[in-house]
Amino acid sequence: MTSTHSESPPNAVLAVRKERGVAWVAINNPPINLIDMRLAMELDALSRTIEAAADIQVVVFESAVPDYFLSHADFGLLQQARNAGRYADTSQLSFYQRVLERFRTMPKISIGMIDGRARGGGAEFALALDMVFASPSARFSQLEILVGINPGGGGAQYLARKAGRSRALELCLGGADVGGDLAVSYGYANRLLPAAELRPFVERLARNIASFPPEALAANKANILAAEPHPEPGLIDAYGKFAGLVASPEFDRRVAAFMAAGGQTAAGEYKDPAMLSEQLA
Amino acid sequence: MTSTHSESPPNAVLAVRKERGVAWVAINNPPINLIDMRLAMELDALSRTIEAAADIQVVVFESAVPDYFLSHADFGLLQQARNAGRYADTSQLSFYQRVLERFRTMPKISIGMIDGRARGGGAEFALALDMVFASPSARFSQLEILVGINPGGGGAQYLARKAGRSRALELCLGGADVGGDLAVSYGYANRLLPAAELRPFVERLARNIASFPPEALAANKANILAAEPHPEPGLIDAYGKFAGLVASPEFDRRVAAFMAAGGQTAAGEYKDPAMLSEQLA
Amino acid sequence: MTSTHSESPPNAVLAVRKERGVAWVAINNPPINLIDMRLAMELDALSRTIEAAADIQVVVFESAVPDYFLSHADFGLLQQARNAGRYADTSQLSFYQRVLERFRTMPKISIGMIDGRARGGGAEFALALDMVFASPSARFSQLEILVGINPGGGGAQYLARKAGRSRALELCLGGADVGGDLAVSYGYANRLLPAAELRPFVERLARNIASFPPEALAANKANILAAEPHPEPGLIDAYGKFAGLVASPEFDRRVAAFMAAGGQTAAGEYKDPAMLSEQLA
Repeated sequence: MTSTHSESPPNAVLAVRKERGVAWVAINNPPINLIDMRLAMELDALSRTIEAAADIQVVVFESAVPDYFLSHADFGLLQQARNAGRYADTSQLSFYQRVLERFRTMPKISIGMIDGRARGGGAEFALALDMVFASPSARFSQLEILVGINPGGGGAQYLARKAGRSRALELCLGGADVGGDLAVSYGYANRLLPAAELRPFVERLARNIASFPPEALAANKANILAAEPHPEPGLIDAYGKFAGLVASPEFDRRVAAFMAAGGQTAAGEYKDPAMLSEQLA
Repeated sequence: MTSTHSESPPNAVLAVRKERGVAWVAINNPPINLIDMRLAMELDALSRTIEAAADIQVVVFESAVPDYFLSHADFGLLQQARNAGRYADTSQLSFYQRVLERFRTMPKISIGMIDGRARGGGAEFALALDMVFASPSARFSQLEILVGINPGGGGAQYLARKAGRSRALELCLGGADVGGDLAVSYGYANRLLPAAELRPFVERLARNIASFPPEALAANKANILAAEPHPEPGLIDAYGKFAGLVASPEFDRRVAAFMAAGGQTAAGEYKDPAMLSEQLA
Repeated sequence: MTSTHSESPPNAVLAVRKERGVAWVAINNPPINLIDMRLAMELDALSRTIEAAADIQVVVFESAVPDYFLSHADFGLLQQARNAGRYADTSQLSFYQRVLERFRTMPKISIGMIDGRARGGGAEFALALDMVFASPSARFSQLEILVGINPGGGGAQYLARKAGRSRALELCLGGADVGGDLAVSYGYANRLLPAAELRPFVERLARNIASFPPEALAANKANILAAEPHPEPGLIDAYGKFAGLVASPEFDRRVAAFMAAGGQTAAGEYKDPAMLSEQLA
């Protein structure tokens, strides 16, 4: 396997570099790594590429954009999808849920290295990964409630399994950021590392994992996944509830107010989303 | 909706004040907020009122009694109920379990703001709430084992889901108080807040939650509840075991010894109940 | 019941002392408390003895060997068992899994008091106990991945229920030691105690528990165990995967390299096993 810095097209928002069995993926969709159509499509394509790559054992996600790891979905995109009838059938996993479940269940190991904001769909993505390591500047939130919806990717199912019912309720009903030690106790991060140690720690761990036999990695991962109740019924329930809520005029009203308050801009999204609660009511 | 300080009769042990979609409930049954017949009946009535109130999104429980949030059941009341044949049918949830499950499952959000002792049935109540915030002076314990029984309200089911098997076993088999950081890692509290920040934090969170659309709150809560194995079989198992143990002469012997040691008085219940272990043997 | 220091034969690797309803078991198989044939047989016999002993309510495991609580299985023994066809039927729990499940499910209370290394099968043993208390010098790891296998005793099932999916994945895929606060947040220990407080704390807790009625202890334990999805399907899955992986030439190659690097010696096993990752590749 060759080490290369140019696995991805020059204009891609996901820049992939492969080295010794590890794919390093830098998310580069400034200013806030919003999950727009292009980023969603590239995540889907990447999930299939990684799953099929015989020379990759580990994939590490990091951000190329300061302060933001991965933001929520472009709310305008959700409105377009709804208007186009894309949420008509909620009897199966959604497009985004299939991407998340592909990473969660593939016999490869996925790691998030996070030192910025991960919110909404971006926080759901982090929760689906096999493990996450965070620096004190990382921030996580399920801000969906601010626009009157729920985590449509089903992230509450992953979160509740990691953080328990009461902490999952606090985050999904309150919409506030958690960082630092709270991010660890609320299940978003395996552990918190000082900023200077985050990359060396993840590099060493990723290299170690990539040195182990693929069959042993796959067996260990599959057995651990089997310890939890399968999330699919809860994911489908989440998708159905999401489809119902985005169909409400209240969603459009709140999205407009969110945009007017600076939503989907770097300045507007820098602060804790819960601070907007009463302004959007 | 009007803000009022007089939603409840002047002699009620639960004083309810409604303000901007939030019902603030002060538990006022001095000296230790023992769950006696009157308090149990008012909790049941309140759970139905809150569930049905179109103008309430959030209910916050606090204590009007220093040092005590909510104590265990009046053990004499349990003896009377047993003698009256009230535990004859354990094939369905008990009266108290139905109260707890009503709060846990209703499409309204319940919060405990705790800076005193919550033990036995009072700790079970806290575990059933959607979330709990505690100050360093909060104390939690499952002291049922001291009188030779188990948490009959099924609190061990909630606790084991939050704290895991080993911590639930330690608390239910040891009967000791946990407070501070331990209360957080043992699942009784979402997080610990300095005494001066507890009320402002809960006020802000309750107001934020009450500002969100009721449909979105209900959908988020229901999806999170679906992430856990349903507790009902475990609750019914707990009730059956409880009914068996309270029927034993050992229960009466231990209750008498507990009362003789100051049980159900403010002075006697101030200290860690586990300190009585060998004295009650 | 008499207190005695000589419940076990003088040459046994498990020294048992009974006192006031508590069996204190010191593991004494120097230099590293390796789980060899003799230790495995004594653990099995002890599990049956404790389960049947009417005068024992609590069993506490500690180590008589400095720095090591309980190590992994003797890898040479696994090779012999494989060669003898002992892993041919993986449709039922393995010998070691039955020992662990006996401790986990018996109506007696088991406690680990740990201030040294617990790795592989030894860490699985700790996870099966009802509760574990650790000092800062305790170290835990699932190092099975270093020799290309998985925790064959099914410890990942216990670990994932305590630590959640992502932390269980990190430990089983990375093979590294965790100690101190990490051991607590990764589920190996209920809580961390300063070295000087570990024994007094466990003595007091064990005595308290032993003072409670056996029927109440059994009822509380059984109800808490019922709160979790039953581990048996996951345990059998783990055993099948283990049998497949130990049959691979890669296992023999890695075991030889592990032995050459000092494996199964006190000096070689003192350091974090993950440091050997690339050396064994």
